[in-house]
Amino acid sequence: MFWILFCIFLAACLGAGATGGLFPPGPWYRSLTKPWFTPPDWVFPVTWMVLYVCMATAGARVAQLDGNGVAMAFWALQIALNGLWTPVFFGLQNIRVGLFVVLGLWVAVALGMGAMWQIDPVSGLLFAPYLLWVTIASALNAAVWRLNPQAVRAGRPSA
Amino acid sequence: MFWILFCIFLAACLGAGATGGLFPPGPWYRSLTKPWFTPPDWVFPVTWMVLYVCMATAGARVAQLDGNGVAMAFWALQIALNGLWTPVFFGLQNIRVGLFVVLGLWVAVALGMGAMWQIDPVSGLLFAPYLLWVTIASALNAAVWRLNPQAVRAGRPSA
Repeated sequence: MFWILFCIFLAACLGAGATGGLFPPGPWYRSLTKPWFTPPDWVFPVTWMVLYVCMATAGARVAQLDGNGVAMAFWALQIALNGLWTPVFFGLQNIRVGLFVVLGLWVAVALGMGAMWQIDPVSGLLFAPYLLWVTIASALNAAVWRLNPQAVRAGRPSA
Repeated sequence: MFWILFCIFLAACLGAGATGGLFPPGPWYRSLTKPWFTPPDWVFPVTWMVLYVCMATAGARVAQLDGNGVAMAFWALQIALNGLWTPVFFGLQNIRVGLFVVLGLWVAVALGMGAMWQIDPVSGLLFAPYLLWVTIASALNAAVWRLNPQAVRAGRPSA
């Protein structure tokens, strides 16, 4: 049963992660002034693949336990917000709404981690690198906002 | 506990649904040849709000039950794919990838409905209008593909 659940949760991660291939960082992102702690482009997909495996493992473990309601609800919320950030930031080039989305994601990941910790500490720990990465992503998005006032004003027409 | 869970699942729905406001149907969509069964624009947000309430209710009910693992995993998968379709179709104007996404969503909703039905028939029934709507959306996407070969070839640069 673990592996069936793992595959479904991993498919959810890959669904959200498909936005990374569909809305890649293009000339617009390269033109932005980035903060000193910006990772090189190749780090993002590698890190996400590791995090997806951690997230799917945590989801599959917790899904088998009784009393998993709150943890499962936050798992669903975090994947919905996870898949929203890339189209907003790279697709719409909307740095402002992107920051709200990534901060909402941070809250969902933190609360989900707490809920998982209560019924399966291993799953809680598996979310720790995810929370760390979303913290870095939030700081990156905030710094890009501060360093690129003209890009924040410009935005991009949605159609 | 039901209402806490309902609010978290509804937030996940609204996270996925935010793509509807961020990537609205614009001049490109209006320029497409649509099939005879295309609903008017205002029907979409109204229908989705009703479906979100049904989906969040089903999620909150099933989340409280033991043995909910597969149902919860599919709930997460369907919301990830749900939030992916709008940025692909209206954002990238990619009719082809949009069809693959909505067909994947159809499978996730159907399997999730079956898994919920086994542990809580009411929740399974609450997913029935959702499956019907995704069936219509799939047919609409497929018909738009067939009726607009030039738009299918054109696509839109992602950045």
